[in-house]
Amino acid sequence: MNVPVLGHDAVLAAVSPAQAIERVRAAFVAHRAGEWTMPAKIYLDSPPHGDFRAMPALGGGFAMLKWISSFPGNPAAHGLPTVMGVVCLSDGATSEPRMLLDARAVTALRTGAVAAVAAQALARADAASVGMIGCGLHGAWAARCLAAAGYGPGVCADPRPEAAVALAEELGWAAGERRGALACDVVCCVTPGLEPVVEVGDLRPGLHLNMLGADGPGKAEASVEAVARCALFCDEWEQASHGGELTGAVEAGAIERAGVTELGAVLAGAAAGRPGAEAVTLFDSTGLAIQDLAIAIAAYSAWRAGSVEAQEIAL
Amino acid sequence: MNVPVLGHDAVLAAVSPAQAIERVRAAFVAHRAGEWTMPAKIYLDSPPHGDFRAMPALGGGFAMLKWISSFPGNPAAHGLPTVMGVVCLSDGATSEPRMLLDARAVTALRTGAVAAVAAQALARADAASVGMIGCGLHGAWAARCLAAAGYGPGVCADPRPEAAVALAEELGWAAGERRGALACDVVCCVTPGLEPVVEVGDLRPGLHLNMLGADGPGKAEASVEAVARCALFCDEWEQASHGGELTGAVEAGAIERAGVTELGAVLAGAAAGRPGAEAVTLFDSTGLAIQDLAIAIAAYSAWRAGSVEAQEIAL
Repeated sequence: MNVPVLGHDAVLAAVSPAQAIERVRAAFVAHRAGEWTMPAKIYLDSPPHGDFRAMPALGGGFAMLKWISSFPGNPAAHGLPTVMGVVCLSDGATSEPRMLLDARAVTALRTGAVAAVAAQALARADAASVGMIGCGLHGAWAARCLAAAGYGPGVCADPRPEAAVALAEELGWAAGERRGALACDVVCCVTPGLEPVVEVGDLRPGLHLNMLGADGPGKAEASVEAVARCALFCDEWEQASHGGELTGAVEAGAIERAGVTELGAVLAGAAAGRPGAEAVTLFDSTGLAIQDLAIAIAAYSAWRAGSVEAQEIAL
Repeated sequence: MNVPVLGHDAVLAAVSPAQAIERVRAAFVAHRAGEWTMPAKIYLDSPPHGDFRAMPALGGGFAMLKWISSFPGNPAAHGLPTVMGVVCLSDGATSEPRMLLDARAVTALRTGAVAAVAAQALARADAASVGMIGCGLHGAWAARCLAAAGYGPGVCADPRPEAAVALAEELGWAAGERRGALACDVVCCVTPGLEPVVEVGDLRPGLHLNMLGADGPGKAEASVEAVARCALFCDEWEQASHGGELTGAVEAGAIERAGVTELGAVLAGAAAGRPGAEAVTLFDSTGLAIQDLAIAIAAYSAWRAGSVEAQEIAL
């Protein structure tokens, strides 16, 4: 059978940030309703380099598997991306492979999109300015998606000034320091999660925090004390409590399940979002396979509609 | 980056049955030694059609993910294979995708190869004749690999006579009935596992049974009583006891862990194989990701050596 293939640039050409936001929001609602399903991801360690993750999901008439790496040393050691892999979108009724997609592009889009979805659901209605702490690949896509959702301008901070300047110039925002970013209405942390960039003293009434960087055990972008002071939301409790921003606070006994609301419940109208204008809300994004499935289906639809060209292979 | 792709026919052209047998045997030994690793596979149900499996493994400098379906109604309903999917072979040190391969061909080769590996390890030294019960895709590849390992001639039985005749003609064996197949030295059962094809009365001293068909809960090719009478071996206890030929006997309390030996232990010389010439040995093959990894590496090596042509995509 012949299978279309979308490489990195084709995926990004196929699905706009605005479309990614809409699709990812709908995926959370469908998952909440039980229409989309997703077993836990598998980690495969490849010591000492990093790990691979296999992430399956089912929904919208398709089954999807994302096979993706997290190799933090890749850029410095090999000039390669941290994250590489392949997404296979299969027909849910016949199991035929329908499309292969570059997993790095899918991941960047869905990670960026959920930052906008969470901000729309949880930030104050009058929130506008965006602080970016971390301006790498995923930080850049979070900023692009927030901009597409009408947020901004913002302050871009990164230990590598050139990354902050490039993102700021692209969006017409300002490059700055962490403190300037933390003064904005919506603050996105997209760092490797090796040390906290948000402490208790950084919290201000009305702030919304998107924590996108901590994606595994031992990683955190906010101190346990800061996390415990926020109104807490996550994409999925299982992942967030075991390998996300919330993990440290759970292990310290500072928070428990009943104190954390899943984003899908808020989007579906089944749970309250922001408790009040003065609250500090924190969303822990660990990254769900349903988000990848949403982007893959959007890309497939774009190809079917003729709006993007695909390579083709015969299996 | 550019990634070579081997479709169904190219995979089969790249790796001969003899090579597949050698690679799969070595994979079991490396896994036993802890050099190759493999987390449990994930099942993703796609009701009412079937399920998908995500199977990762690491070894030999590579990481691999097989994304494969089991959709039993596909041939009748859609004229499509039961099993479809994609294998991604990634570099273990950088995580770059190194090759994509048709998963159906990889699965057929590795399933066939383990039948020969198990027979060489567990059947009597003077075993020669082969009885095939089930002559579908995987049955055919088991027969081809056994023939490549020097076994045969054999008797091919299948409810669809044309399948049995075609396989028999290909190998110079005979088409026959289940009873004729059961009279052979090495008997391979490769049925859907919906009802037992081996009962206690079918067991003869010196017989070796390869049970390849039962690959999920509720499936079995031998009665619990027949299983309990055999010297038992499996590819991996976890899979075999939860979704393999041994599952029914485990659930009935007829066998326990201490009574079952993993094939890798026998191949590594860490455990005894056949207890004696008169014993009946039974090998439960559930299918391991390390087998798929072994075939994928062999195919990649063949492409690197220029002995097979690949398609190419840019990710």
